[in-house]
Amino acid sequence: MSLLTVGTVAFDSIETPFGKVDKVIGGAATYICWAASYFCDKQDLVSVIGDDWPVDEIKLLNSRGVDTRGLQIKNGEKSFFWAGKYREDLNQRDTLVTELNVLADFDPVLPESYQDAEYLMLGNLTPEIQMAVIRQMEKRPRLIAMDTMNFWMDVAMESLLKTIKMVDVLTINDEEARQLSGEYSLVKAAKKIFDLGPKYLVIKKGEHGALLFHGDEVFFAPALPLLEVRDPTGAGDTFAGGFMGYIANTNDTSFENLKRALIYGSAMASFCVEEFSLDRLKRITPEELQTRMTKFKNLVHYTL
Amino acid sequence: MSLLTVGTVAFDSIETPFGKVDKVIGGAATYICWAASYFCDKQDLVSVIGDDWPVDEIKLLNSRGVDTRGLQIKNGEKSFFWAGKYREDLNQRDTLVTELNVLADFDPVLPESYQDAEYLMLGNLTPEIQMAVIRQMEKRPRLIAMDTMNFWMDVAMESLLKTIKMVDVLTINDEEARQLSGEYSLVKAAKKIFDLGPKYLVIKKGEHGALLFHGDEVFFAPALPLLEVRDPTGAGDTFAGGFMGYIANTNDTSFENLKRALIYGSAMASFCVEEFSLDRLKRITPEELQTRMTKFKNLVHYTL
Repeated sequence: MSLLTVGTVAFDSIETPFGKVDKVIGGAATYICWAASYFCDKQDLVSVIGDDWPVDEIKLLNSRGVDTRGLQIKNGEKSFFWAGKYREDLNQRDTLVTELNVLADFDPVLPESYQDAEYLMLGNLTPEIQMAVIRQMEKRPRLIAMDTMNFWMDVAMESLLKTIKMVDVLTINDEEARQLSGEYSLVKAAKKIFDLGPKYLVIKKGEHGALLFHGDEVFFAPALPLLEVRDPTGAGDTFAGGFMGYIANTNDTSFENLKRALIYGSAMASFCVEEFSLDRLKRITPEELQTRMTKFKNLVHYTL
Repeated sequence: MSLLTVGTVAFDSIETPFGKVDKVIGGAATYICWAASYFCDKQDLVSVIGDDWPVDEIKLLNSRGVDTRGLQIKNGEKSFFWAGKYREDLNQRDTLVTELNVLADFDPVLPESYQDAEYLMLGNLTPEIQMAVIRQMEKRPRLIAMDTMNFWMDVAMESLLKTIKMVDVLTINDEEARQLSGEYSLVKAAKKIFDLGPKYLVIKKGEHGALLFHGDEVFFAPALPLLEVRDPTGAGDTFAGGFMGYIANTNDTSFENLKRALIYGSAMASFCVEEFSLDRLKRITPEELQTRMTKFKNLVHYTL
């Protein structure tokens, strides 16, 4: 089944304790599409770039099965640009530069050919744009997942809540789950967030793994302890891409299948952070993915 | 098999966002012995208290199979006292008061009857006292586990390293593992810490679970997301008590058995934090423990 993704396609400048890169390929949708491409061979992308974003990178996405008819290219304009610096512990980062550029007046338009998408991934963006994409779908997708962040809770809570009401899966981090619900206990936070609309809640905890809540059930995907973590940028998007790519490919929205998807998402994220930008994510072999999935299994396996 | 524990037996005053208690029963060894008592019916305790610590609490420990002949009672003196306040997120706490009292000149003395202990748990204390206990053992225990904290890395690194060299299992948190090894990657940190002596490294991550490293292997025990977390005090000690109590009872120091022990330790800690002091820890039924172990299993269970 086809996966439609809306999100940023951008340039990043990143500094971590392990290195520094300038104006590299980035953006939530870029990470999502690349990660999903390992599972799903039919994807649609809705985003906007300037004419400074490399054509070769668009062709690469096409070669991975990503339809880019919904990727608007604004001539004479610049792509979204983000620069950030991670602190020593990699869990905190400071934004140095945010240049919205083409994103400032982005008006997403869904090509007719995207209307058959059964799965929709709303990457982190203004809730208005996320909502606009849902509204352009003539038939509601089987599963809509939405990523967001604390920034939108601070500046656009009303439209954020309207958008959250329309989705099936919300993915946020633990701090954001607490902010959105006003509850410290993540179990209580999940219950309150279910009242807002979603049936599934994914709480991303970075190097501490991810939780999947559904009704009274909860599942935990650990993060793999890694020898090298160089750049956490895009890890959450990569996770979401692996998660939704796996669900779209299996066309199964049961809790049991979402658990598997959570592990695949975590495995993809574990590759992402090993190198800067999408460097590692672009060259994962099926054998490497298999080996990593075995490591995830062994990590939590015990007999009583 | 018998488990010998050395550690503090104390009074705590604790404030969390969920309540406040004054001068309640606390101390690392108290939590360790209580948690271990659910697995192991023969324990020895080495510690020191003033004559202000309730005799009834000593009798309760005895009724749980804890031999207190090594618990020194100093007449006319006061027990160790700690007061602390947790911040909103419960992951950080500020120490308000530390009164060493009887602990200031504590000289541990092992009764002859403790010499047959096969398992030794060194609760967080000055490395000198931990070392003194190891040295008083005529026969080396089958497994020595040691808990410590960043404070001793700051003020007593030399004797800390000497003590670490003598133990099999080191239990510290992620921040401390990074401080001790100088490595950000926990995989690299574990390798460096193995060079210091221990064969096993347990990295405690509080609400994010715990990692067990051994050689090139790693195992992860999640923490159970809880509806109510009122007081994290003693959770790490309770974890260590469940871990060592299970190992002592099964008398099996294989990696496979230590994995199981890690889950039992996590289960005990999940009870501990639900109420203040040892309130919840003192009344766990076998059925409750069984139910919780099933929850831990389901939390990470998936099929591929």
